[in-house]
Formats: sequence, structure tokens, C-alpha cells
Amino acid sequence: MQPFDTACLLVTCRDRPGLIAAITAYIAEHAGNIVRADQHTDHDTGEFFMRVEVTRESLRSGREAFAAGLARVAEPLGMQCRLEWADRPKRVALLVSKEDHCLSDLLWRWKAGELPCEVAMVVSNHTTAAPPVEMVGLPFHHLPVSPETKHRQEEQLLALLDEAEIDLIVLARYMQILSPQVVQRYPGRIINIHHSFLPAFAGARPYHRAHERGVKVIGATSHYVTEDLDEGPIISQTTVPVDHRHTVRDLIRTGRDLERLVLAKAVRLHLEDRVLIAGNKTVVFD
Amino acid sequence: MQPFDTACLLVTCRDRPGLIAAITAYIAEHAGNIVRADQHTDHDTGEFFMRVEVTRESLRSGREAFAAGLARVAEPLGMQCRLEWADRPKRVALLVSKEDHCLSDLLWRWKAGELPCEVAMVVSNHTTAAPPVEMVGLPFHHLPVSPETKHRQEEQLLALLDEAEIDLIVLARYMQILSPQVVQRYPGRIINIHHSFLPAFAGARPYHRAHERGVKVIGATSHYVTEDLDEGPIISQTTVPVDHRHTVRDLIRTGRDLERLVLAKAVRLHLEDRVLIAGNKTVVFD
Amino acid sequence: MQPFDTACLLVTCRDRPGLIAAITAYIAEHAGNIVRADQHTDHDTGEFFMRVEVTRESLRSGREAFAAGLARVAEPLGMQCRLEWADRPKRVALLVSKEDHCLSDLLWRWKAGELPCEVAMVVSNHTTAAPPVEMVGLPFHHLPVSPETKHRQEEQLLALLDEAEIDLIVLARYMQILSPQVVQRYPGRIINIHHSFLPAFAGARPYHRAHERGVKVIGATSHYVTEDLDEGPIISQTTVPVDHRHTVRDLIRTGRDLERLVLAKAVRLHLEDRVLIAGNKTVVFD
Amino acid sequence: MQPFDTACLLVTCRDRPGLIAAITAYIAEHAGNIVRADQHTDHDTGEFFMRVEVTRESLRSGREAFAAGLARVAEPLGMQCRLEWADRPKRVALLVSKEDHCLSDLLWRWKAGELPCEVAMVVSNHTTAAPPVEMVGLPFHHLPVSPETKHRQEEQLLALLDEAEIDLIVLARYMQILSPQVVQRYPGRIINIHHSFLPAFAGARPYHRAHERGVKVIGATSHYVTEDLDEGPIISQTTVPVDHRHTVRDLIRTGRDLERLVLAKAVRLHLEDRVLIAGNKTVVFD
Repeated sequence: MQPFDTACLLVTCRDRPGLIAAITAYIAEHAGNIVRADQHTDHDTGEFFMRVEVTRESLRSGREAFAAGLARVAEPLGMQCRLEWADRPKRVALLVSKEDHCLSDLLWRWKAGELPCEVAMVVSNHTTAAPPVEMVGLPFHHLPVSPETKHRQEEQLLALLDEAEIDLIVLARYMQILSPQVVQRYPGRIINIHHSFLPAFAGARPYHRAHERGVKVIGATSHYVTEDLDEGPIISQTTVPVDHRHTVRDLIRTGRDLERLVLAKAVRLHLEDRVLIAGNKTVVFD
Repeated sequence: MQPFDTACLLVTCRDRPGLIAAITAYIAEHAGNIVRADQHTDHDTGEFFMRVEVTRESLRSGREAFAAGLARVAEPLGMQCRLEWADRPKRVALLVSKEDHCLSDLLWRWKAGELPCEVAMVVSNHTTAAPPVEMVGLPFHHLPVSPETKHRQEEQLLALLDEAEIDLIVLARYMQILSPQVVQRYPGRIINIHHSFLPAFAGARPYHRAHERGVKVIGATSHYVTEDLDEGPIISQTTVPVDHRHTVRDLIRTGRDLERLVLAKAVRLHLEDRVLIAGNKTVVFD
Repeated sequence: MQPFDTACLLVTCRDRPGLIAAITAYIAEHAGNIVRADQHTDHDTGEFFMRVEVTRESLRSGREAFAAGLARVAEPLGMQCRLEWADRPKRVALLVSKEDHCLSDLLWRWKAGELPCEVAMVVSNHTTAAPPVEMVGLPFHHLPVSPETKHRQEEQLLALLDEAEIDLIVLARYMQILSPQVVQRYPGRIINIHHSFLPAFAGARPYHRAHERGVKVIGATSHYVTEDLDEGPIISQTTVPVDHRHTVRDLIRTGRDLERLVLAKAVRLHLEDRVLIAGNKTVVFD
Repeated sequence: MQPFDTACLLVTCRDRPGLIAAITAYIAEHAGNIVRADQHTDHDTGEFFMRVEVTRESLRSGREAFAAGLARVAEPLGMQCRLEWADRPKRVALLVSKEDHCLSDLLWRWKAGELPCEVAMVVSNHTTAAPPVEMVGLPFHHLPVSPETKHRQEEQLLALLDEAEIDLIVLARYMQILSPQVVQRYPGRIINIHHSFLPAFAGARPYHRAHERGVKVIGATSHYVTEDLDEGPIISQTTVPVDHRHTVRDLIRTGRDLERLVLAKAVRLHLEDRVLIAGNKTVVFD
């Protein structure tokens, strides 16, 4: 967890000598107190990734000045920079269908202070998940969907997301495939939970297929959503042993615990700006 | 581990009332002292599985008499019975190609008394694995193979296995696909280690493909060999977390530890008669 | 999970030949259809443990007759038998102090059908945990406590428990030490969660002490409560890796997930009659 | 694994702004190509830790010049610097008593190229571990010990270590307590494996005590040796679930696998200069 009010700087570029020195020298110039720095170089692709957290109070200059100066450093080095301020938490929309275990878990963690964000709304194509949402006093939008109404429903969804200035969409067991019109509007900003250890059992009914195959572990995978179903960059995965005594129903029950943990972890990592996307992979500074 | 000199009775049949009573009553009649009993019913398929260990010294009758009486109990109930005597350890052949980590590990465990068997021979299509074998004083057979000589090489292999009365073949990173003529001769008696968490990354170069996909766990799978490559009944699986810092080389190094553990576990379970095959799955009484 | 309406028979006694035969023969006599049988013999102590699940509908005789006949079988063999009927779920009281993560989790699982019981009440020495309890419509009893009022408060507690005919007390982060007058009334029927991998860090503030010691794993332990604090029979334990980046606050956050899982698992195992107490240990047929 | 021929720079000091900038600017001045940088600040103690790997070929200056210039940067900032060159591998002595599972494993890994070091010798107070050592062609020194001869034996040991210019001592199940005269000569350079998840079951016979306590996990801990037995900084720990079926003998067998993995991991991390000692804890940049 981030105990400080920080500016978080995320850098991606081609690797070359002097990058860390350039970034940290610029921060030192502004009296920035670095509370954490992480760096990774992918020697296969030659890409450089860095994440630096600086306490906001230590910075001698204001936000705009700091950002502008940074751009002048970044430009000649070909750096793509992103600057995130911890006092401006991300705005989140949670999408859910009928099963509410991931939703309830995220809401509990949010109330407990584990997730640094503003949950702006919960959207569902069913009404079953309404009670826990209303208990915590959040807006619940019911947007039913059928094959015929899908396009129209997604337009309503996009309107809601736009109006609320949503930064992150979390598919907390939302059992609809988002169309490219939605996915393309939120690149790297939609997180899904898949109930298997991808790439095993991509697609529907993974627990049933795991049971048929007789595997001795089951798992869950949180990943960014791309236009290729179940193929987006993986953020977090976990597995747990199972045996011949587990029925499909047992796998589903056991899997729910994995899904809750793995989705919550991915959401927290994203909210704390710890995930950088690298093609179809992620660099996670946890 | 089995601390006793036992007879191990393995039963498979259609479920019906009275099966456990029939088996244990027969054992009680012969004064058999049960040191462990395990039972499983698959309520989807209606199949019944049982494993009972009885101390040999407690049995009032001799082996043949005990087996014959058992057959009389089993027949009317449709039971398939297998009786294994711990003082008649299985005879094992280890097959290996170039990488010797699984082989070395199995040999070490065998010397340490972890694997109740007689290792009768090591066979390889290369010579690199010969030194550790010769150090422990076992026969090492070099059977090189090429696409042209494969049929002939497998005949030599089968001759060796036959002559040595082999009960179990362990593919300890043997990088050749056995043809049906071999597989059919040893049904449920060939164990392989695959270097991924199947069904993910079946086939060749799983670590490379795991790296490309950016998964956050890798794994290993031990399974019985069937005619469908990487599709046989799974005995044991394990996984371990990895992250963006792992190169393919790191995955291979990390995976070696998983492969050693998972193969050794499967071999031990099989040697202790703890694995029953149920179609394309296993029931493992560990 | 138990998909059937069953009678569950739990047996403990000195080991001797013929025990399984006697039990299963009795069940077969009554046409009982065994859906699961588990057995364990502790060869150090010579104790025998067995658990058998029989479908209720298969039994030819009524409950009283079945129980009475069983007693006649058990007596000469020195068996201690317990018979539990799945259609008579246990009555549970949840005790909590301020932190509600375990409580919320148990309530969610109970609502979702994971825990086969009747939650009769929640008792707390604080009021902070009241909202989630009231949302699900359960009685919430506030019994504040101070060193001076402890004896009186426990009498009130015992009166509540007695009146509600409670079978199981779950200490879901109840930060008071129960006195012997309470513990002795519910032997083997009070489950606690301790926030470390016992016996490490028994006592207070385990996460702080784990952080000071610089351990690389943390854990949680669910156990039956005895008069010796943190010394009762362990039901379930789990651990998770941590590193130098984890502050005490991170350990507490991470540990909450372990506590929820490990307590819920222990409660489920107990409710499904899968735990037998063996001195200061448990036999868990999961 | 380190795929490059690098200089590895390790820095510890009081935290203050500008540290990373100072270090990386110095490296940039010498054209150093950073292949990996890791940093940690302990906000409780105010300590700063950094590890930077630079490819040797990229450095414009020679080793002595680079080291001397670094000292001029470090001095005013109060940095303690250590510079390690990957082409000068550490010299290692392995100490063992009777049980050879850790020793055999380390020797196998060393032969396989997993451990970047020179194993200079194996020392034992018994002769049982001699065969695997001689097979790989390493010197084996038999130094028997009794309470009366302990002081004399340790002098012989120190003479051997001195003469061979040993950098790291690995206690691969060496069942003797080293006296302060040895420990003080190799501060932070003796690694031990303890067969429990410390601080649980410190001292002798941990598996027996784990069995008595009825724990549901067992573990292993690798740590630096200090004068306080089993109290030194922990490098790595792992655990594995066990249940009521595990006898002491099973725990010992299962634990051997943990011990091998955890000791090998600690040795590798140390050899790759990934471990910094921080009081009684470690910072591990793995």
C-alpha cells in the first residue's frame, strides 16, 4: 500500500544508457524525495520500463511545472511518460451479471480502504446484485441485454461511463462479451477475471472442462481486456490443488475464492499504478 | 510411506450397497489387520474405487489362498481386483534423453529409500546421462534413434523391457514419442513428465510459449502415457509463480525443480499402488 | 460439499481387526448406501478413526432404531460413535470484536449456501460490526466487556448461547480470551482464527512480530479453543510469501485474506463433520 | 540468472534525496549500461538499499579507476558500497554431516551451471557424504569432531577455509553449532538451512515437534548464521501442507524437498549478490 501522498511516474521507451540517471536527476533537481523506484529492461525486445514514486510535498514546483519540465526531459530520449497523482484517485465502474462474489469482495475491500479509488457505479445486466450495492450507497444501473439489444445497451453503457468520467472498468464476473466499440474506448483500462489458469480452458465453462480433463490444479486469471477474448495481457494468476473428490460444484466453490483474490489483486495493482503493459504482456512492480 | 510389509488390494467396480462390507468382511475372516483403507465413489459415473492395505503377517492364509478367496468374493459383485505384495517391489526402467535432472533426482531418491522399487535399467537415445547411472552401478543401455531407425529401436527397447520383466516405464525427460506398439504393451504403466500445467502448452517448447504468452505461473504435469500425446490421465500437477523478470532460461531453470518434484511424486504414488485409473482421469489415494 | 441428505457416522476407538467390517456390515444390514467412507489409523497411538456418510433415504430403519442398533454394535468394540443428520444443521453463534473481515466473509458464504448451518446470532463486545449483520437480518447482541465486567458478560453470553441451543461458536476475530467457564461448556465446539502460522507468533500482535523478525512467509491458523491460549488442536493452516517491501500494514492486509480463507475452511469442515479431535491434534477427512 | 558479464554495485546508507541520481549519474559518466537496477527504502528505519548491474564491457574505465571514482561519490553521501565482478566468482565451502540430500542437490546444480561459483571443497565430520563429492572430483576433507576436540577441529577448519580463500560457507545440513570464533570470521557469509518455518520449532528435532503439535504445514528456512542459534537474518522460507496421515518419517521425507529448494535458492541469491543484510533482516532483490 502507498502510505504517502505521491506523484507516480511511469516511463516506457527503448533502452539506452543514461535513462535512469536522466529521470532521477530531473527529480533531484526538483527536490523530489523518491520513496520507491522500480526498473525493468526486457533484453529480448530492448524495452525499458520504470516506475518512480515521489512524495508530493517534497516537490519544489507545482504539478503543471513539474509535468512540463518532465516532458522536456522525456522528449529527446523518446520516453513515453505518465504522471499519476495519488490525491486524484481513479474513478471505477464495476460490471457484474448474476454471481456477486467478486463484486461483494471488491465493495468490502473498497470500504475497508484497500482499494485507493472512487467507485462511481455498478452496472449489471441483471438485478440480483443490487442489494450489496445499495447497502453501501452506490448507484446501481440495470442495463438488461439480449442479442437484439446489445448494440443499444452498450451505447447506454458508454454514455454512463463517459458522463461519470470513468478511468477503469472492472468486469467482476460480467458474463457478456464487450464489443470492440467499448474495448477500443478503454484500452488497457478494462480488467476481467477468467475462472481458469489461462491459456488452459479459455472460453466458456472452464470448471466443467477442468473436471472432465481430470486436472489436479485449478486457477484464476485477471487480465486486461482486448478484442481477442481471453487473450489480453495477464496481470495476475493463481492456482490451488484439487483432487478426484472435487465435483464440478466443489471446483466452482473453490474457484470463487481464487477469483476474488486474483481480481482484487489486479485491481489494486492497477489503481496503484504498478502495471505497465508491454505488448501482450505486463510488467508488474508489486 | 508404507512402514509395513503389506498386501495392497485395489478394487474398481460399479457402485452398489455392501461393497465395503463385502471386502472388509473377507479380510476380517482371514484375520487381516487393515492399516489403511481409502474409498471413493464417483457419483457422476457411478464408479466405486477402493484401496486397502493389510499387514501380510496378520493374514491367516497364504498368498494364493487369499487371492483365490478374494476372487470368489469379487466375481458376483463385478469387482475388478488387483492384489499387490509390498515384498515384491515393481521393476522399473528409466528412459531419458539428454537432460538428466529428473533422472538424477529419481536415482538419488531410489538410493535414499524413497522409492520402493527395483530400478532395473536406464535407457537413453544419447550417452550424456550415462555417468550418474554408472556411479550407482545400474545398467545403461544406449539406443540411439532417428526417424529411419525408430521402429527398429523400439523393438530393441521392447526386447530389453521384456527380458527384464519391467512393470513400470518412467519417461524422465525422454524426448521421443513412443509409438502405439510400445504404449499398448504397457497400458497404465508408462509415466511421463510434461513441462507445463496441462492442458496449457501441450506439445513442444512449453517454456518458450509460456514466456511469449506472459503467464504469471508455470507448472509441470506427470501423467500416464496414452496414444494421444499429452492427453493421458494426470497423476500430479504443480505450479509456481513467475513474473516479468523471468527469461525463458529462468523459466527452464525454475521448471526443472517442478519437474523433478512432480515426476518423483507420481512415481512414488504409482509404486505404492495409490493411483487408480478411471477413464481419462485418476483417483489418487495419497 | 455434501450433495446428499445423509447420516454421517463418526467413530473413534482403539484399533483392532474387524472394525471397518463391523461398521459397514451394520450399515449394509440396514440397506444403507455409503456415499463416502474415510478411515485413519494412527500407528503411533493405536487409535482408529472413521467417518461414513450414508444417504438417509437408503436406510430401511428410522433414526432412533438405526442409532440404537449402532450402539449395540459399538459397545463391545469400545467404539465412541457420533451420528449426525444433514437435515438437522448445526446452530452457530459468531463472536466478533471490531474487525469484520472474517464475519463479513462468513455471512457472505452462509448466504451463498457454502456453510450448511443456521447462523443463530452474532455477538460482539463492540457495535462496529452491526451493519452487515443487520443487512442479512440476523440478531446482533452487543455485550460490552471490561476487566471488571468480564465474568458478568460471559454469563450473559452463556445465557444467550444456551437459550439458542448453539452447537458451534466461531470466534471471527473476537479479541477477548474466553474464560474456562465458557470453554468447558463447549469442548471441541469453539473455533478460533489466529493470525499467524502457529506455533510461531502465538499471543498478541503476530504481524508486528513477524515484521520485526523478517520472516519471508506469513500465515493463519484455525483451531479449536482449549484452556491453553493458542494451543488447541489445529484444523487448518495456510501461508503466503512476503518480502522486505511488506510493511506491517501490508502484512495485516495480506493476512486478512488468509484469515478469511482459513477460518471459513475450518468452519465448513466442522459443519460437514469432517474433523475428529485426537488429543491435541485433528484428523480432517476433507 | 545473470546472462551478462557484469559489475554489480550494492549500496546501503541513510535515505536522503538524490541518492539514485548520484549513483546512476556516475555510472552514466562512465558509459555504463545498466541491465538491472533495484532499490528499496525502509521507511521505518530510514535506510536506503540499492543494487545496480552494469555490463562490464560498457564501462569506459578499468576496474580500479571505476571503484576509486565510485568511492569519491559515495563518501560525502555516507554510502557503503560493495562492487562485485561477475567474472570473479565466489569461492564456496560446503559443510555437511551425514545426510547428503542438500549436498547432492547443490553439487548437481553447480554442475548444471545454476550456481555461479567455484566450489572449493566439501568438509564433513563424517565420511558418509564422500562418494558424491569424489564423483564430481572435488576435495573432501574429513574433520571428525567431539566435544573435547571441537576447538581443535574448528581451527583445522579455519585453516582450510583461509588457505582456500573461501568467500561463502554453506551449512548443507551440518549438524554442529559453529562457535563464535568461526562465525565472527565470516559475518554475513555463512548460510544455514533449518528444517522448520522459523521462528516455529527453532532448535533440535523440528519434524518430531511439528508432528507432536499437529501442524498442518511444515517448512524450511535458509538464513545467515549469527552467534544466536536459528536467529540470523532469514533469506528464504517455504512451506507445504501436511495432514494427519503424515508420520514423522513422511514429514522428514517431504521436508527434504523443501530443504533442498530453500537452501539452493538462498545460495544462488547470495552468489548473484541479490541479498543485502539489514540488521537482523534481509533485503532480497530476486
